[in-house]
Amino acid sequence: MTKAQEIAYDLREQIRSGRLTPGMALPSESKMMSQYGYSRETIRAGVRLLIEEGLVVAGQGQGKYIREDYPPVVWNWTTLESRSRHANAVEGRTAGDQWASAIAENGNAPRQEISVSIVVPPPHVRERLGLPADGLAVARKRVRYIDNRPYALADSYFPQELVSGTPLMEPRDVSAPGGVLASVGLVQTKYVDEISVRMPTHQEAEQLGLPAATPVAEHTRTGYDADDRPLRCMVTILPGDRHKILYEVSTD
Amino acid sequence: MTKAQEIAYDLREQIRSGRLTPGMALPSESKMMSQYGYSRETIRAGVRLLIEEGLVVAGQGQGKYIREDYPPVVWNWTTLESRSRHANAVEGRTAGDQWASAIAENGNAPRQEISVSIVVPPPHVRERLGLPADGLAVARKRVRYIDNRPYALADSYFPQELVSGTPLMEPRDVSAPGGVLASVGLVQTKYVDEISVRMPTHQEAEQLGLPAATPVAEHTRTGYDADDRPLRCMVTILPGDRHKILYEVSTD
Repeated sequence: MTKAQEIAYDLREQIRSGRLTPGMALPSESKMMSQYGYSRETIRAGVRLLIEEGLVVAGQGQGKYIREDYPPVVWNWTTLESRSRHANAVEGRTAGDQWASAIAENGNAPRQEISVSIVVPPPHVRERLGLPADGLAVARKRVRYIDNRPYALADSYFPQELVSGTPLMEPRDVSAPGGVLASVGLVQTKYVDEISVRMPTHQEAEQLGLPAATPVAEHTRTGYDADDRPLRCMVTILPGDRHKILYEVSTD
Repeated sequence: MTKAQEIAYDLREQIRSGRLTPGMALPSESKMMSQYGYSRETIRAGVRLLIEEGLVVAGQGQGKYIREDYPPVVWNWTTLESRSRHANAVEGRTAGDQWASAIAENGNAPRQEISVSIVVPPPHVRERLGLPADGLAVARKRVRYIDNRPYALADSYFPQELVSGTPLMEPRDVSAPGGVLASVGLVQTKYVDEISVRMPTHQEAEQLGLPAATPVAEHTRTGYDADDRPLRCMVTILPGDRHKILYEVSTD
């Protein structure tokens, strides 16, 4: 173990044991220099290890703080944004979309900023929707807030020919007991989810207000009808510090 | 956009367009200073942004390189490590476990280092297995290699009373048509998967040889029998630069 690793190890233990708590400032460099008996450079190298691990964040100026985690939200992807199961859960309700309902049921306040546009979709979305090179899609781009803090970016893409002239073209929440696809007469019978883990782009970090060293999951759900025709591709960016992804599957 | 962001933007575009390719060294600081007309400090700040995004990695000494991604491996978690579906897939085969079979079917060479021990499991595992505070579990800890490169850490925990005296206590691949649980007479009928996204611990980074700014998914699968009794808890650490997680679910 190098001296820097030794310092990181000690601070990590203090965080784990609760002696250093979320939001608390780290001791100053001078204080740690006298405490550990190491040079300023070594202290900095040790703190940098914790910043890279995401346990410590750099504040304005010289301050370093123990990361304050967001209240974590668990999204159950086997029921969320899935036609049939959700149909039962919200039977008879009309307000809000599936995501908003799930958040509200948990006692939190959901809010979405929605913009709708007709776009040439990104290549990986075009491929999943089976569109030709110049094929157009209707994009519903949402920034999802919980209790006024940004939690996720969720962009849904629909082949233009499937949703043209429907309420999905309007920039507002679409509410329907069977989900947005059912609301325009489309029946999703299967979905394929792909999850990648990566660092955020600069733009994502800005939109979601991410501290340094905060990775994201990129969750791509492609929904199909009974004839294996792709109906929708939804790309959700989920910051790791405020989400847990859940699947519940019966193997019968 | 600051000057540093401008440099990062330009280099990002060069990576995207393929002018800078994986493994290639970035131009030297002096070269970029004359190219952009900015100070060494500004050039460094720009490059640091790309290191934080994981697009650039620092080599030995001063060198900075475009990240070389591992050949990505897609793990379908709806069939992998799941009793019933896999039973069909490997009917009549006996060699290797489910993961190894899946990798070999794809034309790659799987290898696992397995250690078996009786442990007090970590708190979140103990909770999922419904064990008392002093309850013991059999831990099968694996480092999984593909083509001799480390790809994942997979630790399975079984309540000791369920597997004591069975082949699961031996530190080798357990092969069985219906999966490891079936091999000891246990039938998994449901599983719950939880996925978190975070930076790796120092130990994980060392075991998996992770470059800086490489986040991981922590995938926790808890398997239950028909009476909702927990049979197994498997914690898999999947580095984002070499994995995609896949789920295929029918909503019927």
